[in-house]
Amino acid sequence: MITRIVRVIETFSEDRTSQTVSDIGRRAGLPPSTAHRLVGELVANGMLERDDEHRVRLGLRLWELALRGSTAHRLREVALPHMERVQSAIREHTQLAVLERDEALCLEKLSHPRAGANIARVAGRLPLHASSSGLVLLAHADPRLRERLLAAPLRRVGPETITDPAHLRRTLIEIRRFGRAIAPGSIEEVSTGVAVPLRRAGAVVAALSVVLPREHPPEAALEVLVRAARGIEGDLRSERR
Amino acid sequence: MITRIVRVIETFSEDRTSQTVSDIGRRAGLPPSTAHRLVGELVANGMLERDDEHRVRLGLRLWELALRGSTAHRLREVALPHMERVQSAIREHTQLAVLERDEALCLEKLSHPRAGANIARVAGRLPLHASSSGLVLLAHADPRLRERLLAAPLRRVGPETITDPAHLRRTLIEIRRFGRAIAPGSIEEVSTGVAVPLRRAGAVVAALSVVLPREHPPEAALEVLVRAARGIEGDLRSERR
Repeated sequence: MITRIVRVIETFSEDRTSQTVSDIGRRAGLPPSTAHRLVGELVANGMLERDDEHRVRLGLRLWELALRGSTAHRLREVALPHMERVQSAIREHTQLAVLERDEALCLEKLSHPRAGANIARVAGRLPLHASSSGLVLLAHADPRLRERLLAAPLRRVGPETITDPAHLRRTLIEIRRFGRAIAPGSIEEVSTGVAVPLRRAGAVVAALSVVLPREHPPEAALEVLVRAARGIEGDLRSERR
Repeated sequence: MITRIVRVIETFSEDRTSQTVSDIGRRAGLPPSTAHRLVGELVANGMLERDDEHRVRLGLRLWELALRGSTAHRLREVALPHMERVQSAIREHTQLAVLERDEALCLEKLSHPRAGANIARVAGRLPLHASSSGLVLLAHADPRLRERLLAAPLRRVGPETITDPAHLRRTLIEIRRFGRAIAPGSIEEVSTGVAVPLRRAGAVVAALSVVLPREHPPEAALEVLVRAARGIEGDLRSERR
């Protein structure tokens, strides 16, 4: 039952915020009668909503419940003022990401109106081996996840994505040693990702990053990022929750 | 079944991001065995997560699914750059809220580090008759909602909350006529809320607001808000989705 509900909710995406019940059923692999009943119950509970054209959308109540008590949302709330400070200094893209099922999940992103190329989206995912925040998360992940990822083919995302396992292994050691990842051209040729880890109680819980135009040197941004990371870690320590 | 799942998720809040299974069961009004089975299934589907101390949290996967395809999230993404512009001009609190079940639900909030008092929180709620964004949403709501609210007792939230129905009715007419709500002291004595409507396809879909220290005149903020609202409305029109 819960699996079916999740499958229904999974049929919605950034590019598909409204659907007919039959489309939902087809995409979730449910018989039409099951889809109708399930959507009806989800609408009755506010998890889905019907619009004027009888199409179905994700409910505001679902959004509210999923955010209100979530640790991801808390982390984002604590990080945001510091991200705004990074953003006002660097004026490109400032991002916060966490590890979720072998990928980097973007919790927040601030972008300057005239910032350069960047594919990241809030609630979107980036591959661990190709994004600077993913590399930071991977460098500090459970060694079993690291070995599993190093054993599988490493997809080439950008012109300079690290696809050789030995090279990636050396890079992860450097990231742990120097406390930052710098990834030029690993997603897009014209951009460089710069990321640092965020720690809570000693463990890396997230990565804070900026995406710069390739021609910008990363050092100044790195200094701002490190200062912001210390600020967020301080605020996380003083949290009661 | 769906109602039970919703009741489990509802037990989490900003002040309660992690709980034991028995606490969840008790708060959701479920027998212990049902709570254990349900939490187990929700964990298996990533909707909940267990932490190191075997306490339960809302899952990152739930956060991701609830945001990714939601129209609330899309609206927030479109509004954010404009909110950042308001914020850089006003440097207090800038907020985006929508109507959800007789209350104003806050979708986004940017706050200056040294901004004044403000109780709003992202994914938090404000009463329609007491907050400036709530007043804007109420002024443009379905007349049946307005009449229902005017017929019920109006709770005094701040020293100047409008609690007289006839006064509230006149205020709502003015808000529709002048295209803005100005609410000094209606939530907190020291603050004034200033809000304007956001329209999509002619209908008011959200309210954009700032919260100012009481001693600041609202006119300059209002001008900035109106400009931002026009910008957001333009971006909403040019959206394909």
